Parts: sequence; C-alpha cells; structure tokens
Amino acid sequence: AGRGAQQAARVCHPPGAVLDESTGKVLVVQDRNKTINAWKFPGGLSNPGEDIGDTAVREVFEETGIKSEFKSILSIRQQHQHPGAFGQSDMYIICRLQPSSFSISFCQQECLRCEWMDLEELVRTKNSTPITSNVAKLLLYGYREGFDKIDITMREFPAVYTGLFYKLYHRELPESYRNIT
Amino acid sequence: AGRGAQQAARVCHPPGAVLDESTGKVLVVQDRNKTINAWKFPGGLSNPGEDIGDTAVREVFEETGIKSEFKSILSIRQQHQHPGAFGQSDMYIICRLQPSSFSISFCQQECLRCEWMDLEELVRTKNSTPITSNVAKLLLYGYREGFDKIDITMREFPAVYTGLFYKLYHRELPESYRNIT
Repeated sequence: AGRGAQQAARVCHPPGAVLDESTGKVLVVQDRNKTINAWKFPGGLSNPGEDIGDTAVREVFEETGIKSEFKSILSIRQQHQHPGAFGQSDMYIICRLQPSSFSISFCQQECLRCEWMDLEELVRTKNSTPITSNVAKLLLYGYREGFDKIDITMREFPAVYTGLFYKLYHRELPESYRNIT
Repeated sequence: AGRGAQQAARVCHPPGAVLDESTGKVLVVQDRNKTINAWKFPGGLSNPGEDIGDTAVREVFEETGIKSEFKSILSIRQQHQHPGAFGQSDMYIICRLQPSSFSISFCQQECLRCEWMDLEELVRTKNSTPITSNVAKLLLYGYREGFDKIDITMREFPAVYTGLFYKLYHRELPESYRNIT
C-alpha cells in the first residue's frame, strides 16, 4: 500500500481477514479501478521478506485505518500465471487478525469502499471473489466451532548453525507430542 | 539442488518430509560441508515461484533418488536474518510427501548420509535440528492419530479478473460450510 512506482506492476493481495468477534463482522474493501467491484479482504503490496504477521497488520492499517493484532495464518495462496509452466507463480499468506480499533478511515487511492460486513453476509454474497468467499467460509467455521479448527499457529526456534531464529507455522501440536524427548 | 552458481549464496532448505506409512520410516539426510552433522529432511534450493508440491517432489528426487507424491503442506518456516529488522526474512514451505520408490541413491555433492530412519527415532535423537525435531513430532502425531490432524490441504479456484487460477491451502473445510450459498 502506497509504496510507490517501483512496485506498481505487482498485484494487490489480500493478507488480512480482520474479524470483530463481539459483532461477527469482518473488514472488507472494494478496490478502486477495477471493472468488477467485488468485496475482498484488505491488503496491499506485500514484501515477501517481511514478517508474516507484521505485513498483514501494516497493510490493513495503511489501507483501512484499522489497528489489529496477528492471531494465525488461515491460508496460503499460490497464483499460477501460466498453468503448467515451471516457476511461474507467486505465493501469499492470508492471516487472521483481531481488531483493536474499529473506526474506518480508508485509503481513497486504493479503495472504492470499505466497511464492517456481517461474516455470514460475506459468505453468502455473490459480489466477492472465489478466494474471499472460501476464506470467509473458513472463518465462519472457526468463529462458530472454535478457531483451533482453522488456525495455523506459530512457534519460534533457534537456528542450529547461525545463531539466527526461525518462526514455524503449523497445526497445533498437543503437549504430549511436544514434550517427547 | 544442483542448479549452479547463481544460487550458491542461498541456504539449503528442507521442503520434503517423506514418510513410508507401511514401515513408519522417514527419509533423512545429513548435509556435506557442515560442522554439525544433524539429520534433517531432504531438500535443496527452491524457487519461490515454483509450484509448492512440484518443488518438494523434485528436490527430494534430485537429492535422494526417491520418487514421491505431494500430500499436504505441514509447515511454513520463516527465517529472520536480523531479529527485529524490517524486511529481512525468507519463507519456506515444508511438505508431507508419500514415497512411490524406496531405493536411495543420494547426491554425493550435497549429502554426507541419507537413510530411512524410524520416525520415533528421529523424534528422539539429539542429532537433528530443532525444526526437524518439531516437524518429526508433528508427523508422528499425524501418523498415529490421523493425517487430518496435521495436514494443510489444497483447493483450486479461478481468479476473477484474469482467467488465471489459484491454489489455496488451508485446513480442511467441512462439506456443510463448503456448500453454503
């Protein structure tokens, strides 16, 4: 979002599904300058090298003015530009975020509309992208039956050779397995 | 694996956890030219743009001679090169693969050792990396209690504006939610 011309060629990506658990509403936007005004999750141009959660939180804030906290990874999206062509695809991460502010102030350059929409309405609307609709269904499943059903959560590990560290995202591992030695 | 000098600066990554379900053994390697000979999952240099499953299958074959099939994503690894530094990290995907051949013929340039190791032994050995050990525990959990506990599975979607298509990886979504319209 708003990082200038050198990234103009890149597409706009949807990293942040921000759900207000107290109301069941989710933050959605419509892009400016698109022929189809489909509702989607906010996000912008993301740096593949950036911390996953930090990117999503920053992008959502820049695009909508909503502050949020990273909760989990919901989905990994891979876009194939030429079906079957070796090496022609991009990968993006869709995160689940919890809002800590609720007053929308959206980026007029990027967005045509931005609102808090009932999650069930987003699930049912024809006016969204297939990806948005699917992630909305996933989010509704988690909202109703527990986020542990949908979350890909994070653990941190030291790297062996280098003194660096890793973040590893995967399904929750039960205590009994985590503690095997 | 073996893609020449232009990628020499990149680190060696572990994309493929190949588990032989009939024996409970998993494919592990030790890198050549490392001071610590820790067991890890095979893999090599991966193209971020390549199809996730194709990369893992190809890398495992090039490094170990084992043919396999992509089953799911197990984990997303993010390496931070400078803790706290904005934009200084890399992201890699660890896949679960099912072997279709079993006779090892490993790449001598890359590996010092390669073998089928009992999954429980890999979980318990001190001679592995923290990441390997954790993914081994996750795999053991899935092997014993059902891979649905650990798998991040794939669905394919059309892209709205472009005629391209997406692969979306996430937790299994129950039929009842998938069919909401």
